[in-house]
Amino acid sequence: MIVNGTPYRTVWMEGKVVRMINQPSLPHFFEIADMHTYQETAAAIRDMTVRGAGAIGAAGGFGMAQVVLEAPDGHGFMDFLEQGAKILRSTRPTAQNLFYAVDRVLAAVRAEGTVSGARKAAIETAQAIADEDARSCEAIGRFGTALLNDGSRIMTHCNAGWLAFVDWGTALAPVYRAKRDGKRVFVYADETRPRGQGAGLTAWELANEEVDCAVIPDNAAGYLMSKGEIDLVIVGSDRIAANGDVANKIGTFEKAVLAHELGIPFYVAAPTSTIDPNCPDGNAIPIEERSPDEVLFAYGLLDSGGLGRVRLAPAGAKARNPAFDVTPARYIRGIITQNGIYTPDRITDSLDFGLAEKSSGAN
Amino acid sequence: MIVNGTPYRTVWMEGKVVRMINQPSLPHFFEIADMHTYQETAAAIRDMTVRGAGAIGAAGGFGMAQVVLEAPDGHGFMDFLEQGAKILRSTRPTAQNLFYAVDRVLAAVRAEGTVSGARKAAIETAQAIADEDARSCEAIGRFGTALLNDGSRIMTHCNAGWLAFVDWGTALAPVYRAKRDGKRVFVYADETRPRGQGAGLTAWELANEEVDCAVIPDNAAGYLMSKGEIDLVIVGSDRIAANGDVANKIGTFEKAVLAHELGIPFYVAAPTSTIDPNCPDGNAIPIEERSPDEVLFAYGLLDSGGLGRVRLAPAGAKARNPAFDVTPARYIRGIITQNGIYTPDRITDSLDFGLAEKSSGAN
Repeated sequence: MIVNGTPYRTVWMEGKVVRMINQPSLPHFFEIADMHTYQETAAAIRDMTVRGAGAIGAAGGFGMAQVVLEAPDGHGFMDFLEQGAKILRSTRPTAQNLFYAVDRVLAAVRAEGTVSGARKAAIETAQAIADEDARSCEAIGRFGTALLNDGSRIMTHCNAGWLAFVDWGTALAPVYRAKRDGKRVFVYADETRPRGQGAGLTAWELANEEVDCAVIPDNAAGYLMSKGEIDLVIVGSDRIAANGDVANKIGTFEKAVLAHELGIPFYVAAPTSTIDPNCPDGNAIPIEERSPDEVLFAYGLLDSGGLGRVRLAPAGAKARNPAFDVTPARYIRGIITQNGIYTPDRITDSLDFGLAEKSSGAN
Repeated sequence: MIVNGTPYRTVWMEGKVVRMINQPSLPHFFEIADMHTYQETAAAIRDMTVRGAGAIGAAGGFGMAQVVLEAPDGHGFMDFLEQGAKILRSTRPTAQNLFYAVDRVLAAVRAEGTVSGARKAAIETAQAIADEDARSCEAIGRFGTALLNDGSRIMTHCNAGWLAFVDWGTALAPVYRAKRDGKRVFVYADETRPRGQGAGLTAWELANEEVDCAVIPDNAAGYLMSKGEIDLVIVGSDRIAANGDVANKIGTFEKAVLAHELGIPFYVAAPTSTIDPNCPDGNAIPIEERSPDEVLFAYGLLDSGGLGRVRLAPAGAKARNPAFDVTPARYIRGIITQNGIYTPDRITDSLDFGLAEKSSGAN
């Protein structure tokens, strides 16, 4: 996608360096952050310099390639890899794409007989993961745009735009496709407290692509739905269980229940790499609890021009800060993947579709 | 209620001055603001120096008394009153208690034959409105506390504590009563974006009364309900229609739908002055839309020690900011009034109760 006239991906690798758009500075400053070692990349995932399901996956893949490049030749090679994989996996407990990417690079390395072959395979596999993410998201846009009409008003939660992936995004890909196809669309962006990815990232992405948008308090979603101002909801996902239960940013469950109650179609958009076929249902998905400070403060641009924060709660106040919730499959009308739109109960069919393509050589 | 060892009401009158706790400075600074004219009191209601259903009502009553004190003797007296009433009524379009208080002072004045009698009646009526508010809220606490057990975990939205009334509050009155009765209770305070009255005011009130509390993002309410961590929900109200539909702070509708879906009792607490018997249902309640800046920024205490704000959204972003929503009666288990707990479909019976009391001289 375009930023100030230049095409960018969210995260990429140059030599041994993983480069990424520094997301905590957005929407106020556009900066590229460089991670010179896998430890720095792991820290960037943990502190959310890079965030969003697909972008975390790509960063995890590139980080794992850094592990392979940094590993000592000879005896300690595999131990170093296992240790690096463990550190990368531990950065964000909910994100399925992270585990997918780390494991895939590790498997590619294990298939090689030499250290130099392993290093080449690691880089190529990490790059392939990023490229596939971008291609998958573009395909999600093609399938999802069929749900949008000229004049459609779409609500989304958090940021499942291109900043959350390598390019295009998931929930916003149908919007971007519709815009390119000449449809007028309007997006209600839930602010998405506590980290405000909707107010910050989604509003910034959409403005860059000249899509009309209004930021709304998370509290206002139900009101606008009840007033007939929202035609459909599309959100992303951090992990999809085999039964179609969907983990996504905290608050997604609330919006899904409201959409269901008010008869508004609720869609999830995600590449099949988000599906965890070993996870039977949403109860098995671990939910990350993050620092109370994210709730007790708000972070943004000070009137003085720098980044800063304001304290919202009295000194000494406590907070709970679960970062994700699980939306049971029954609230979800469909899941938009790069292979088509599936009802939640048939979501694992989207994986078979991929296998069928591969075995027939159509990939 | 007690602040730093001293008992306070939220708003009161001394001579011709209306004094109030300056709520935008809370929870960071505790300050008293003085309104020397009814125009200043009207501005304080409009800019939310005083906010909350009952406190707006009391401030409106005292403001109307100021109008009567400031009116010229003789010919222009009634015109001045009508003009002052109009200005006070226009400050907040949703708050039923405001109209109730202004109209009641006006009616008391009209019943008098002399200007001096009118002035005395205005002050006495405004004081009576404030005193009744405090008594009603204490009674709400007595009725509501029967819903709480030792160990109960209560979720509330916005601030319907004593700061929103003259004393005691509505949604929090049962909590304060339970605490005084020796029950251990725990409150989840929805942050309540965009103005953050939960994170700021509710958390501050509860800390002063030594009630355990955790602030949660509005987005986390559904998650905590789904995990069995919330036993019941109690919220306040800004206006109750004759059919039991309830207008309250934006987001209340969302929490009510979630509680209903998950089988968690959802209660509204309000004095009968909040009931608008002329309003047939929630569709007839006007919903105030406030400045987009409340959504695009967050306001609080800067690290430098002063009050300030941070910009959350990119420059040029638009926002929608409906301040209230309507919860249909079917989602509400009961409405706690000073006359007892009523099902929403019987809420107007609580008004008859008041009349019966009055006609029997029991008041």
